[in-house]
Amino acid sequence: MTIADRWLLPDGVDEVLPERAQVVEHLRRQLLDLYNCWGYDLVIPPMVEFTDSLLSGSGSDLDLMTFRITDQLSGRMMGIRADITPQTARMDAHSLRREGPSRLCYAGTVLHTRPRGPLESRTPISIGVELFGEATVAADIEVIELLLQSISSAGVENVHLDLGHVDIFRGLLADAGLSADSEAQLFDLVQRKAARELAQWIESNISDPQLAGWLNVLPSLAGSVEVLAAARDKLAGAPAAVLAAVAQLEEIVTAIAQRNVTVYLDLGELPGYHYHTGVVFAAYVQGYGKALGNGGRYDHVGDAFGRPRPATGFACNLKSLVSQSANNEAAKLGIFVAHSSNPAVAEQITQQITELRSQGERVVQGFADQLVDYSELNCDRALVEQDGSWVIQKLS
Amino acid sequence: MTIADRWLLPDGVDEVLPERAQVVEHLRRQLLDLYNCWGYDLVIPPMVEFTDSLLSGSGSDLDLMTFRITDQLSGRMMGIRADITPQTARMDAHSLRREGPSRLCYAGTVLHTRPRGPLESRTPISIGVELFGEATVAADIEVIELLLQSISSAGVENVHLDLGHVDIFRGLLADAGLSADSEAQLFDLVQRKAARELAQWIESNISDPQLAGWLNVLPSLAGSVEVLAAARDKLAGAPAAVLAAVAQLEEIVTAIAQRNVTVYLDLGELPGYHYHTGVVFAAYVQGYGKALGNGGRYDHVGDAFGRPRPATGFACNLKSLVSQSANNEAAKLGIFVAHSSNPAVAEQITQQITELRSQGERVVQGFADQLVDYSELNCDRALVEQDGSWVIQKLS
Repeated sequence: MTIADRWLLPDGVDEVLPERAQVVEHLRRQLLDLYNCWGYDLVIPPMVEFTDSLLSGSGSDLDLMTFRITDQLSGRMMGIRADITPQTARMDAHSLRREGPSRLCYAGTVLHTRPRGPLESRTPISIGVELFGEATVAADIEVIELLLQSISSAGVENVHLDLGHVDIFRGLLADAGLSADSEAQLFDLVQRKAARELAQWIESNISDPQLAGWLNVLPSLAGSVEVLAAARDKLAGAPAAVLAAVAQLEEIVTAIAQRNVTVYLDLGELPGYHYHTGVVFAAYVQGYGKALGNGGRYDHVGDAFGRPRPATGFACNLKSLVSQSANNEAAKLGIFVAHSSNPAVAEQITQQITELRSQGERVVQGFADQLVDYSELNCDRALVEQDGSWVIQKLS
Repeated sequence: MTIADRWLLPDGVDEVLPERAQVVEHLRRQLLDLYNCWGYDLVIPPMVEFTDSLLSGSGSDLDLMTFRITDQLSGRMMGIRADITPQTARMDAHSLRREGPSRLCYAGTVLHTRPRGPLESRTPISIGVELFGEATVAADIEVIELLLQSISSAGVENVHLDLGHVDIFRGLLADAGLSADSEAQLFDLVQRKAARELAQWIESNISDPQLAGWLNVLPSLAGSVEVLAAARDKLAGAPAAVLAAVAQLEEIVTAIAQRNVTVYLDLGELPGYHYHTGVVFAAYVQGYGKALGNGGRYDHVGDAFGRPRPATGFACNLKSLVSQSANNEAAKLGIFVAHSSNPAVAEQITQQITELRSQGERVVQGFADQLVDYSELNCDRALVEQDGSWVIQKLS
């Protein structure tokens, strides 16, 4: 084991150094304050839970993302959370048991066994909100609005919002009687927009000509808001759930029309951890391959905890948001105060320092014979004695 | 698997619900701001590292407290941090490489395989500071002062500060030529203050009568500040490192004499994770069996990263601090705004809400036909229309 080996962090595991850490902390506070202003209560779920709780009701993607450890006290298997959403669902169902709508928010590290995509962090700081107990699209609109405000709080502009709805694909297949395997194959083809393969697969597996037609057009129903008009036209006569989904997307598009975002609709998309049940969305910014935040409706996660409640929410990776942030406001620098070995002077200095700190100033106290490098110390001023009184001097 | 099983959290793993979470968040901000005022830069070390880094230079206690997971990408073993201090030592030695004194602070969850004591959390939120590059006791005094200020910021009074110094025990044994096993036995007896057993052990293992005498008095050198005078007397002639350690403790006791804390000295104590090398301290409050915060000097942890730097610091468990806090200031409650299905009214409402939120108010928007329970929603006021204008009404 060489010293250089000990410096290495695992791939996709990152540390945040002082300057950047302060920006992360600032945005963290700004977002939690924003969520509080919207009535979202902060909760702090634990870093580990029994896998039985942590993975209940969520899909297999999340399962594979979750590190397992053995609980020495009980011998049972625990998981390190890879996603905070199912934890808040447990808290809503069991710990809080509110009757009406319940709004929760959180900020904390999650851990992934593998990066979710190229260059993604395996230790994102997840910050987000969840709204339980309200089934209407008004709740989805509220959380989408908050996602967009979160991103603009971070100073990120030119945002693209991807919108989809799980019920379009699911609603079309509701009465098709496909096996789980067949459905997974079909899902994969639609996801990949592999039009030719899809057409072949449909021809050999779907006998209902009307359903075959609807499925064949799904990959083409992707693009800007005109897609919704095309969907109403091409999916006419489809099951009620499908048409209701299209209507929900229209409501959302109308509600955020005032916002300065580019909306991209994809009616064949079904992203995320497979626990979603309605509207799904993700926000992107040009030149950054990963989503800045994503979310959607997941009405059935609470079932596993004995209390099915409608639910919708989103999460962002705080470190990704900061990396794309245009807020480059420099942190306020400090005042350096040199050491004095004269007890009377030292006492005066202590008084000055206490006074300055109580005014919110950052004051760095020097040690005897210390090496002084103002930039290392993040100081731009110094406290010095001039003609018998103490003054703050700018450093060049 | 029953539903009730899925509600269970592992022993020693706790979640923080809304009211308490807000207090935790408030204190977190207050403490990080305090540390910033003292010139401590925030860093965010990762939740996991290779065990080779995470456990380098730390003792076997920490090793046993650390959960291991396999890195799927490299096949190497990773550990989930049980302590943030060694991580900051790596950052100081490698990531920052400052030449002068470097002050760092942090706040984050750590994970322990077993509780450190009865009723201790296995998922504490560790918040603390580390000061690298300054070997004098002035640095220890600074961090002890900050620990005491952290505790008083939390509104905790009647604090007891336990003080010890690793060099007293180590300095006495430096030339004794004991095997590691014998030293461990002796250490255990001194720790347990088992005077009779200790005397027997010394008689059969220590031939030097002067050393035997010094070791025999160690368990009695515990109590209030008079212990220091007794130590000077009873350890007269002991190796220079021992007397220097007593002198350091005297300096610390003098420096914090103004503070309203009860000091308890224990010259035979050697607490913590075995990486300490000088002054060690812990703060307690009556009626609470666990330390509110502890720390000390650990000059050699950086060795493993190729850069031995003097170091001292402390950490608190934020959740413990909050549990003992007398700050019971209730959070500011919100304003509830009922839904309106009249588009003109809805637009007025949206304007009012935006305005109130921009003033920092918490505003909870109602949904159509929602069940309204003001206490669930944490609201004490409502926005209502009165004679054609919008007013905020107190709720009874």
